[in-house]
Amino acid sequence: MTTGADPLVLFMPSGRRGRFPRGTPVIEAARTLGVYVESVCGGRGICGRCQIEVAEGVFAKHKIISAADHLSAWSAKEARYAAKRPFPPGRRLSCSATIEGDLVVDLPTGMAVNSAVVRKAVDTRDFPRDPAIRLLYVEVAEPDMHAPLGDLDRIFAALERDWDVAAPIVDPAILPEVQAILRRGGWRVTCAIALDRDDERPRLMGLYPGLKNEAYGIAVDIGSTTIALHLSSLLSGATIASAGAPNPQIRFGEDLMSRVSYVMMNPQGRPQMTVAVRAAIQALIEEVAAEARIATDDIMDCVFVGNPIMHHLFLGIDPTELGQAPFALAVSGAVAVPASDLDLTLHPAARAYLLPCIAGHVGADAAAVTLSEGPHRQDETMLIVDVGTNAEIVLGNRSRLLAASSPTGPAFEGAEISSGQRAAPGAIERVRIDPHTLEPRFKVIGVETWSHEPGFAEAARAVGVTGICGSGIIEVIAEMFLAGIVTEDGVIDGALAARSPRIVREGRTFAYVLHETADQTIRVLQTDIRAIQLGKAALYAGIKLLMDRFAVPPALAVPAPTSAPAAASDDLPLDLDPAEAPALADALFAAQAGRAAEPAISPPPPLPVPETTATAAPIRIDRIALAGAFGSFIEPRYAMILGLVPDCDLAKCGSIGNAAGAGARMALLNRAYRREIEATVTRIAKIETALEPDFQRHFVAAMAFPNKLDAYPELCRVQPLPNRGADGSVLANRPDTAGSPVGDGRRRRAGSRARERQA
Amino acid sequence: MTTGADPLVLFMPSGRRGRFPRGTPVIEAARTLGVYVESVCGGRGICGRCQIEVAEGVFAKHKIISAADHLSAWSAKEARYAAKRPFPPGRRLSCSATIEGDLVVDLPTGMAVNSAVVRKAVDTRDFPRDPAIRLLYVEVAEPDMHAPLGDLDRIFAALERDWDVAAPIVDPAILPEVQAILRRGGWRVTCAIALDRDDERPRLMGLYPGLKNEAYGIAVDIGSTTIALHLSSLLSGATIASAGAPNPQIRFGEDLMSRVSYVMMNPQGRPQMTVAVRAAIQALIEEVAAEARIATDDIMDCVFVGNPIMHHLFLGIDPTELGQAPFALAVSGAVAVPASDLDLTLHPAARAYLLPCIAGHVGADAAAVTLSEGPHRQDETMLIVDVGTNAEIVLGNRSRLLAASSPTGPAFEGAEISSGQRAAPGAIERVRIDPHTLEPRFKVIGVETWSHEPGFAEAARAVGVTGICGSGIIEVIAEMFLAGIVTEDGVIDGALAARSPRIVREGRTFAYVLHETADQTIRVLQTDIRAIQLGKAALYAGIKLLMDRFAVPPALAVPAPTSAPAAASDDLPLDLDPAEAPALADALFAAQAGRAAEPAISPPPPLPVPETTATAAPIRIDRIALAGAFGSFIEPRYAMILGLVPDCDLAKCGSIGNAAGAGARMALLNRAYRREIEATVTRIAKIETALEPDFQRHFVAAMAFPNKLDAYPELCRVQPLPNRGADGSVLANRPDTAGSPVGDGRRRRAGSRARERQA
Repeated sequence: MTTGADPLVLFMPSGRRGRFPRGTPVIEAARTLGVYVESVCGGRGICGRCQIEVAEGVFAKHKIISAADHLSAWSAKEARYAAKRPFPPGRRLSCSATIEGDLVVDLPTGMAVNSAVVRKAVDTRDFPRDPAIRLLYVEVAEPDMHAPLGDLDRIFAALERDWDVAAPIVDPAILPEVQAILRRGGWRVTCAIALDRDDERPRLMGLYPGLKNEAYGIAVDIGSTTIALHLSSLLSGATIASAGAPNPQIRFGEDLMSRVSYVMMNPQGRPQMTVAVRAAIQALIEEVAAEARIATDDIMDCVFVGNPIMHHLFLGIDPTELGQAPFALAVSGAVAVPASDLDLTLHPAARAYLLPCIAGHVGADAAAVTLSEGPHRQDETMLIVDVGTNAEIVLGNRSRLLAASSPTGPAFEGAEISSGQRAAPGAIERVRIDPHTLEPRFKVIGVETWSHEPGFAEAARAVGVTGICGSGIIEVIAEMFLAGIVTEDGVIDGALAARSPRIVREGRTFAYVLHETADQTIRVLQTDIRAIQLGKAALYAGIKLLMDRFAVPPALAVPAPTSAPAAASDDLPLDLDPAEAPALADALFAAQAGRAAEPAISPPPPLPVPETTATAAPIRIDRIALAGAFGSFIEPRYAMILGLVPDCDLAKCGSIGNAAGAGARMALLNRAYRREIEATVTRIAKIETALEPDFQRHFVAAMAFPNKLDAYPELCRVQPLPNRGADGSVLANRPDTAGSPVGDGRRRRAGSRARERQA
Repeated sequence: MTTGADPLVLFMPSGRRGRFPRGTPVIEAARTLGVYVESVCGGRGICGRCQIEVAEGVFAKHKIISAADHLSAWSAKEARYAAKRPFPPGRRLSCSATIEGDLVVDLPTGMAVNSAVVRKAVDTRDFPRDPAIRLLYVEVAEPDMHAPLGDLDRIFAALERDWDVAAPIVDPAILPEVQAILRRGGWRVTCAIALDRDDERPRLMGLYPGLKNEAYGIAVDIGSTTIALHLSSLLSGATIASAGAPNPQIRFGEDLMSRVSYVMMNPQGRPQMTVAVRAAIQALIEEVAAEARIATDDIMDCVFVGNPIMHHLFLGIDPTELGQAPFALAVSGAVAVPASDLDLTLHPAARAYLLPCIAGHVGADAAAVTLSEGPHRQDETMLIVDVGTNAEIVLGNRSRLLAASSPTGPAFEGAEISSGQRAAPGAIERVRIDPHTLEPRFKVIGVETWSHEPGFAEAARAVGVTGICGSGIIEVIAEMFLAGIVTEDGVIDGALAARSPRIVREGRTFAYVLHETADQTIRVLQTDIRAIQLGKAALYAGIKLLMDRFAVPPALAVPAPTSAPAAASDDLPLDLDPAEAPALADALFAAQAGRAAEPAISPPPPLPVPETTATAAPIRIDRIALAGAFGSFIEPRYAMILGLVPDCDLAKCGSIGNAAGAGARMALLNRAYRREIEATVTRIAKIETALEPDFQRHFVAAMAFPNKLDAYPELCRVQPLPNRGADGSVLANRPDTAGSPVGDGRRRRAGSRARERQA
């Protein structure tokens, strides 16, 4: 029974608060409120895990005046602990300090209580913790002939008495060791107890003589290109070490579909790739363990995310079904298996947890991004885009969630671009084009200065200027569009060749020379632009399908697009019959699936103009999150100028870094997040883009920069676009100018003006 | 809602009954009443597992007139099943037949629904079944891009829909196989679901295309001498095959304590013995699988029992702690571990279940015997004795249970007896002695006729007459006692040497010649009798301690024994000072523990006569069960004449065969029995005989035949004893005759008269 006269205690960062009678230990108050406070020793004052700090001051909003002396005076336990271990000033042991007045209590994270150095804090976000593994110290009764309970059974009795852990399962490897460990510890042992789901029995996975005060876990994002691994303390939550490595499966196939093909063609393909990825992960485990100077045996939990094909290959599952309709996953729900079954050498009784997959093309990585960004925890409508060879798209808010994948192809990663390359030193990553002179300046990975700044040449000599990476491609094309070099339809304006030596003829089309030296030319070809158009149109069409579905009840019919008038040019077959769009899309699918067919593009036609059809009012997207490596480097403004993503307040559009890894880490450090994402994934409506009749219509409209139909009012407020009004709408005169592949002064000038205003 | 007008249905053998509306399927009624009816196909009429029979007739006690036509008419499902599979007349499928009137329903056991032949019925007892493994057939939805649940997840959905099995754990080995199995089965699969405890998650341990209609389990009793294994169908409960083999650990030490010594002396001793016992069990598994013509993969569950040292060695636990006080078990509770961790090749995801141990010397075998005999399910007070090198003793009834072990030594197994041998062809197993002539007749294992019958000599020539086995030793000594050759105190009466050539001098004592040929003499020496006295006194003292504890509140003090007058003889030191009893007991312990010391016996002294002390009235034992191999061969009457066990109605004293194996089989076929014995063991009060001050007093009294103090009224009703009244009480004149090592005519005659009356 608490009363209004009892002290008020607020715990940060959770913000949970309550009144407790004077004399209540702080840890007890925290637990009453559901605030997780680590403790290994169970209040004996020896593990130091339950440290807190008092935030002193007047917290008007909470009507709390908090002071350090609103806690009880230092106890003998705290004095004893401080004499043996680092105990920073202001810290208290919450098992010992009792509430004597109003308090604001901070729970420090990333505390180092032992010699392991906290090297990094890759993810500084603070979230509540409740790991699936706990270390529980117990003092066990000695054997008694009159009550002949076994040694293990007396440990269990102590666990139940002190920790309320009942009837655990015991790992078989512990049985032969119980007696020696108990006697070595003088009847004091620490139990590593695994309990992930509340509907299962706790598991005694490790037993240690005396007090064991550290346990670790790893969170791993298995990308098709890169594997990233973080080592965290399960007790403090601190990230201790991180490591990454290329996915060795690349040697079997650069992208996902070529790896599936490899499995289909080679009987040993699946085992080879499974062995390769597991070995690479094991090498990373050993790398972080060495860096943190810990034993791999002390890594007691692990969480993995990856796209469905990575997920299946890691689990030893043949991914062939994922390469063909209906794209059936072997398993979509979360998977928990012994880590040893995955050939991982960690603690021998460690279990691996894999987040659920959302659909055949939307994997556990997308689930992890969703967990990390939490659209399901927000009122704002959020669009999450993870761009890779496949784009994975999640859209929604607290009340509704949708997901899809779209086959964007590898253009965004610099592949299939004539001068494209992976993001590596020497790659052009930033580009600006002067709208008057059409001269570029650029920035190269590994070089601090821009290309027009003094010292660039010398600085660049070391790394060279070797190509254009994904973010560079986006920027150069967007700048070409803004400078009028490229039309809305993605055609390089050959008429400009007269004005600038940068525009050159290349067969039947034109190219833009971005960088030229005696022995090297980096150009943007018409086919490069077309590759980006195909990729971004696929991405945008997928997003648009989700937005359509989000906006309207499924019952409302959407009329088919009507083709717009398109003027024929003199020497180029510029008509794109709407019936051709499916062929384009099919070619894109085919190119991805087997690299068998090349997209049937050569000279680009202008795009047809679908009528805006009468659907429900388009939804407003409040926030756009760009995930993944590509999302980390792309400038949101350029992504929007080219129409990769829909219109949105640019201030609310940004990279979220390796959100998949962050989500994996959340699931590692708090088992409640596992339940949260499992429940959330079952709520996500999946849209198979390939099956949607509107996909092709959206695809065609999205071939244009930024889009043939959709308004970009938020973007145009800060970035005027060619052929767009200040409100971002498509200018009414567009049909008059459409269909001309050559320069259109007015349109170019509009772009130039826009560029000037921006500068 | 059922009413009094609804038909009344009684299920046998469970006896559960209830009223159900007409039209209720019989299987549904059974389940409502908690009667376990097997079904694999979930009522599709294809597995045939839910067969029932109607018991027709008037069941007056139950007020039921039962008739076959009180079930619905044959269904199409039943006709279809009968066309494909054996379906004996009178059988019905309970998933199809509905209740249309009052019924008595029999659940047949041991049904063969497939080709596997039921070879044996080792245990014909009928008990309810509810195995931890079930085969559940499901029809699974095909993959759907619009609802992209994984293949496994759709299996789970079907399991939940059809069988109410939610959120199973999946065995990792299944993941890579799910898709191929589902497609091979045409989206119909059978799931092997393991669920032992209700507080854990079900486990998908196997997945099979189409209908799988058989699963097996093994129950194994790991004796220190013999390993016995039974293979049962988990679906029908039938025992399919049985096999046994010597425990190969014998080569490391004949008895338990010598095996512990071997471990203590040899660093490789523990692993050697663990490997040996596991390999022997694996060989038996392969033997029964071959006999039953099944794959070892189809053995999905296994239950093991054994004494604590066998239990520990099988689990790979060093048993050293069990060789010394306080005899701490590493684990006393039930253990469940993957069978593969025990190096057993069964179904790869099979778990092994080991029954709990009761105490450091009272193992999982005693728990299994308790489960099988069920003293905790009875109002009668039952004594269970499992005699081996250690005797394990359980005493109690529904309200209270006690257990102890007593170090009887190996005499009862024929070891440490001059002509002793294991029970094998050629061993004397039955003996009768004519009280007038003192001539014996006997029966030999492997020979049908008695030694005095025509044809014995020829018949015995094949096997020989090689020694005396455990039951033979008991009988010959008991007959010697009845014939007056041996006194109550266990002394061979040398005076009789004058009367019969069968009594011969052997050093300072006498011997009885049981069998003599030209080249062979089988004699019973004074030391043989002394060995049996020591063993049976230890056994009885243990029993007596339990009876004391059972009879009186622990607080009641028991006075120390007073020594009785003992007359000295001329040339033999016949006094046994009460202070010598502990030394005797200690020697016995030592002999067992290390074979280091021989019991310090040579000429036997007469026994002191402890006063009957004023304790609570001795308890009445309603039933005595003799377990184990020895218990199977011993004649209860002779066990009682020698005082191995207390007085009891002989009709309620008998062998229970391999009750440990029977208990293991119960735990295999019904997981509820696992919970029952786990709960029961926690209720059993354990008495460490070595620590009880009264042990020595009881031991000394129990050196006499049958006992110095205790009355045997039930025995004496059918078997008069020397020096006992017809009411079984010790004759008041005994002190007058005690102390004389030589013949006492009156006493001998009393024995003779008794023998005559009996004959």
